Parts: sequence; C-alpha cells; structure tokens
Amino acid sequence: MSTGRFEIRIPEGDEHERKVCADCGYVAYENPKPVVGSVVATPDGRVLLCKRAIMPRRGFWTLPAGYMEMGETVEAGAAREAWEEAQARISIEGVLAVYSIPHLGQVQVFFRAGFAEPGFAAGPESEAVALFAWDEIPWEELAFPSVRWALEAWRASAGAPLPAAAQNPA
Amino acid sequence: MSTGRFEIRIPEGDEHERKVCADCGYVAYENPKPVVGSVVATPDGRVLLCKRAIMPRRGFWTLPAGYMEMGETVEAGAAREAWEEAQARISIEGVLAVYSIPHLGQVQVFFRAGFAEPGFAAGPESEAVALFAWDEIPWEELAFPSVRWALEAWRASAGAPLPAAAQNPA
Repeated sequence: MSTGRFEIRIPEGDEHERKVCADCGYVAYENPKPVVGSVVATPDGRVLLCKRAIMPRRGFWTLPAGYMEMGETVEAGAAREAWEEAQARISIEGVLAVYSIPHLGQVQVFFRAGFAEPGFAAGPESEAVALFAWDEIPWEELAFPSVRWALEAWRASAGAPLPAAAQNPA
Repeated sequence: MSTGRFEIRIPEGDEHERKVCADCGYVAYENPKPVVGSVVATPDGRVLLCKRAIMPRRGFWTLPAGYMEMGETVEAGAAREAWEEAQARISIEGVLAVYSIPHLGQVQVFFRAGFAEPGFAAGPESEAVALFAWDEIPWEELAFPSVRWALEAWRASAGAPLPAAAQNPA
C-alpha cells in the first residue's frame, strides 16, 4: 500500500503492535471489516438464496451479504447487498446474529428480513436466485459456514423478538 | 498512507468508487471499523461506567468499548476492552445492539455482560471506574450518544433472551 519503510512496533500510548512508518511515524491500523447480510423470508417460510457467479465458491449457494461501505448503516448495507445480489427490496426486522471470522478479519452482522416488495432476480454476482422451503435448502452446496449458521439462527428465532436497537435511536 | 498517486475511480468489476493507485492498480478499500463494547451489570442491576482519562471527551463517562483488533472475535474484543479500561473480567450473555455511526465509519456491537470475577479498577485510559444504579447514572455526563442508547437497550432487554448466536457455532 505504500513505498514507505514500515516497521512493526508498539506506538507510544498504544498496547498493541502496529505497522508504523519508520520515516514519518504514520500508524497503519488494521481492523476487521464488517460484512452485512440478511436471511430474507416469505410469510410462508421460504428463504432467499443466491447461487454465486463469482469466486470464491462460484456455483455454491449463499445469503445476500457483502462488505459494508463507508457512509452507510449496517441495515442500509444489508438492503444494498440484497438489491445488488438478488434484486430484492427487503424490510429488516432485527439483528439475527453477529459472527466473527478471525482468520479472515471479518465481523458478519446478519439480519432477519422480509420482502418489502414482491420479486427478485439474479444480480451480476449471482447465477441464479431462488426461494427454498426449509427442507429444500441445499445444505451440501452452501458457500460458507456462516450461511448455515445464519439459517439455523433464523430457524431458531422464528416468532421470537430480536434486539430492537438494531437501528440508531433518534 | 502512500506516496503513490491515487485516483478515485470505479475499478473493473466493482460498483463503487475506490482509491486506486494510478501506477500499479492497487485498490485501497476503505471500510467501516468495528467497535466492540459491553454493558456489564451486577446481579442487583448496577452498571459499570468508566470516566475517560483520554481525549476525546476526557472526564465524561463511557462504557468499556473500543476498536476491535485483527485476529480476535467480537466477544474477545469486548472482554479485552473491559479488562483494559476497567480491569474487569466479564462473562458475555448475548448481543444487545448493533449501532452504525456512518459519519465516523464505525459499527458498534454492544453485548450484555456480567462479572465473571468480582473486582474492577481504573485502567490506563480511565480516571475512575464505578458502578451506578439506574437512577444514579450521570446522564448529562455521558461521553457519547451510543452510551445512552446501549444503556437504554440494556434496560429494555432486562430478563429477555438475546440472540444466542453471538458466538460462532462449532
């Protein structure tokens, strides 16, 4: 990222090793990145899955989810990903789960959601998009472990209230 | 961060503007940063607050919270912050709330927690650490809006189950 001479040391006043530029003292903090996604379901309990058209795990099924962008909220990010990957307009009900993937430096926030409008279609990153009843979910063809975790958390949360404070209070 | 010549454009296959090095094509993604914290309470309902010894908002009261480090889980990060700021060993009960602060590029994950061991003390970033009953909380001297939001979410969640999937399932 830089042609500067970085060294690994603990900056003054810090408690952790950082990449510090030996020339100017710039500290290149590295933090985990938030991923936002949703389990979008119909009133009769079918969930929306997307067949990945891109690497990694092309051809496997996933939930609409992706890296959060600067300047958006977690809810807006999850809604954007549902639109980009599945051309679905969703309404978010609450926080379903928060997963950490330390070796990837990811924090994944999953929401429980419904359809705000009918309709969905494959976006540019999806080969196909479909609704699956619980017993139809292609468990052996899911793209990532957290897809299964989030689906199971969705199943377990059925009918239960979720944290109401997912959105910033006024 | 670099002496390279960055330009703002949409990289091939992307849908958003990024900082791209005009020389080598390196894409400097910028993502919101996760903050992890907790509302730590005693069985009789007093909550742990820390009086900040550092800027910003020095002298104001806050919950133990801070930027998540690479390689840790959200729960481990919240426990680390409770130790660093309040010398408290905590046990996490579940996800209390997820707040987005778009203008700061932050995603804040707050947990409901108790004390795993008795005792607490001011860490290097705190002038003082104390337990407050609900009616004693210094509402006018809280450091950040999300401190109030998280305290109110804690109050509203009393006795209620929280998402069980805060930790990665096995």
